[in-house]
Amino acid sequence: MVIAQNIEYFNSPLYLESGRILESYNVAYETYGELNADKSNLIVVFHALTGSQHAAGRYDGDNKTGWWDSLIGDGKTIDTSKFFVICSNILGGCNGTTGPISVNQSTGEPYRLKFPVITISDMVRVQQNLFSRLGLKNAYAVIGGSLGAMQALCCSIEYPDFAKRVICLAGTSATSPWAISFNKIAMDGILNDPLFKNGQYDEDAFKDDGLLGLALGRMAGHISFLSPHSMRRKFDRNYVDTDGLYELFGRFQAERYLEYNGYSFSRRFDPLSYLYIIKAMNIFDAARNYESLKDSFSSIKAKVYLIAFKGDLLFLPDEMELMRDTLYELGRKSMTEFVCVDSDYGHDAFLVEYEKFDFHIKKALTEEI
Amino acid sequence: MVIAQNIEYFNSPLYLESGRILESYNVAYETYGELNADKSNLIVVFHALTGSQHAAGRYDGDNKTGWWDSLIGDGKTIDTSKFFVICSNILGGCNGTTGPISVNQSTGEPYRLKFPVITISDMVRVQQNLFSRLGLKNAYAVIGGSLGAMQALCCSIEYPDFAKRVICLAGTSATSPWAISFNKIAMDGILNDPLFKNGQYDEDAFKDDGLLGLALGRMAGHISFLSPHSMRRKFDRNYVDTDGLYELFGRFQAERYLEYNGYSFSRRFDPLSYLYIIKAMNIFDAARNYESLKDSFSSIKAKVYLIAFKGDLLFLPDEMELMRDTLYELGRKSMTEFVCVDSDYGHDAFLVEYEKFDFHIKKALTEEI
Repeated sequence: MVIAQNIEYFNSPLYLESGRILESYNVAYETYGELNADKSNLIVVFHALTGSQHAAGRYDGDNKTGWWDSLIGDGKTIDTSKFFVICSNILGGCNGTTGPISVNQSTGEPYRLKFPVITISDMVRVQQNLFSRLGLKNAYAVIGGSLGAMQALCCSIEYPDFAKRVICLAGTSATSPWAISFNKIAMDGILNDPLFKNGQYDEDAFKDDGLLGLALGRMAGHISFLSPHSMRRKFDRNYVDTDGLYELFGRFQAERYLEYNGYSFSRRFDPLSYLYIIKAMNIFDAARNYESLKDSFSSIKAKVYLIAFKGDLLFLPDEMELMRDTLYELGRKSMTEFVCVDSDYGHDAFLVEYEKFDFHIKKALTEEI
Repeated sequence: MVIAQNIEYFNSPLYLESGRILESYNVAYETYGELNADKSNLIVVFHALTGSQHAAGRYDGDNKTGWWDSLIGDGKTIDTSKFFVICSNILGGCNGTTGPISVNQSTGEPYRLKFPVITISDMVRVQQNLFSRLGLKNAYAVIGGSLGAMQALCCSIEYPDFAKRVICLAGTSATSPWAISFNKIAMDGILNDPLFKNGQYDEDAFKDDGLLGLALGRMAGHISFLSPHSMRRKFDRNYVDTDGLYELFGRFQAERYLEYNGYSFSRRFDPLSYLYIIKAMNIFDAARNYESLKDSFSSIKAKVYLIAFKGDLLFLPDEMELMRDTLYELGRKSMTEFVCVDSDYGHDAFLVEYEKFDFHIKKALTEEI
């Protein structure tokens, strides 16, 4: 499978949901597989909170694969020998698409805290502009998990003619106060960290371990991605070093896991970018600009596949049941599939327990509609 | 009801579980009600993580009552017209009992990070020393929630002849990796906060909002005290100010709740004390110095009342079911009562939803054994 890395530059203004305008922007993306002659084999993959356009394959000399490489590739569930797959870095990101650390062309300086607040709708609009530029008018399917599921859902509501199938994993139609609360640790951690300096930070000041507030926020995130039961199975009460029992710094394996994930993240991810993306997540409510969720969903034309995970504590299965029930109320029973995967892994299941749900995706991608 | 505030000074060494020694220590405590002639009406109340000895009543001129005032008082569930109630600040605390900011008599300086790591057993030993000093050999009942339940359980294992009844609410026999993970936000938040200065902090440096790392850790704690459902009911997706929707600083009610609780706590509580108490919580495992939990529980003589809360996400009901089942295995069915209160409030229920469980406490305190 060949990975094609690209970037597109847009010199026309982007009108944001907030009423504010980005004068110009660019979008970094990757593609896998080949577009067929009638352009009917496009699958759009949306990445989650801290993912990137590198969804599959391995860069030359790199030992890490893309974040959904288990699913995307030649002969895999999302089969790149049949489909043309595209994944773009979201607006607000820090992997090549315009975000708060990008240079504002009109000032010659990075936006930083002057970057406008963005929404999931804005992210989806940018992707649509990319697809138009590339001559891609329709998708065989759009798919994403978590924040990616929000984009997939939003795409099916706001661009109802675009995709035939929309597959949402571990998603919700509106970010819950529980999820907003986990994001709050990062929000205040970043904004109030003395090294953040109101966004005018000098990266060198925290290059070793990253910004502490971001690391703590990410640790909170990782707690929300797991669950009491998955943590017990993964770590139990095991110590990293049993000599440490009565030492203040004696660590449990659960603590080491959070340390590793918190600080490795804060070293690689930009704090401003994280701030704007979690804000977009917090704002997300598919019913926001409509009378009701039913009203919002009434424009959907695609067949909707909802894959919930029983042990997901961040976006609970009952949030996806609400989506299912709303679609049923709209008389779309034959155009809605709902499964709740029996997993106690937590929210992260969509990035881990592939064998428990890949066949649902396979079915969605093979059945006639 | 009269509140009697006292402090006792111990000039004899305290041998800690870790093998380390505190040369001297003091214990601050409150009592309510009167000890009867045969000293048979003592009820010991253990406070939770950030509680204090001020369990009930109202100090002159104060408009806040003690943390369990709804349950403790004349004619209340824990009836101070019948019982003599005592509550002491835990070892490691910052409300009068010796803790890391107390002055080490041998150096004339506060201990700070030189304070030894303490355990729940150490806290219970200090309380027993207090009771001996006061001539209190037996308790009618001991009772506590959360960290207080750990102390109650520990007391019934290590001092089996002390109490006739032990009542544990929202507790566990061993702190789970899930709970340890929430504590980790505070642990790293405090230790790595630049203003913490390896424990040599100048309080004036963070007097306005407290230490940020402690506030963030406390926010994480407050998330763990609630649940997705209780948050939805309390806050839903309501904004504090609807004008703030597209503003980076526009806040949700859930965020304001965490801000209020995080920063008001970090202004009033000492970060070193918090660090040592969460470490003691993390270490807690009733089976730690035994062959098994069954072996540990085999010394218990008291009747054990276990009150779990269905929606408790910090110490799950199945953790208290394990305690019940272990007691059953020991043939103590007639000396064990277990209830799981139908609540989706979360861990905090034992401090909030009194009407759902106070009658269970009443029953425990009135039935003959």
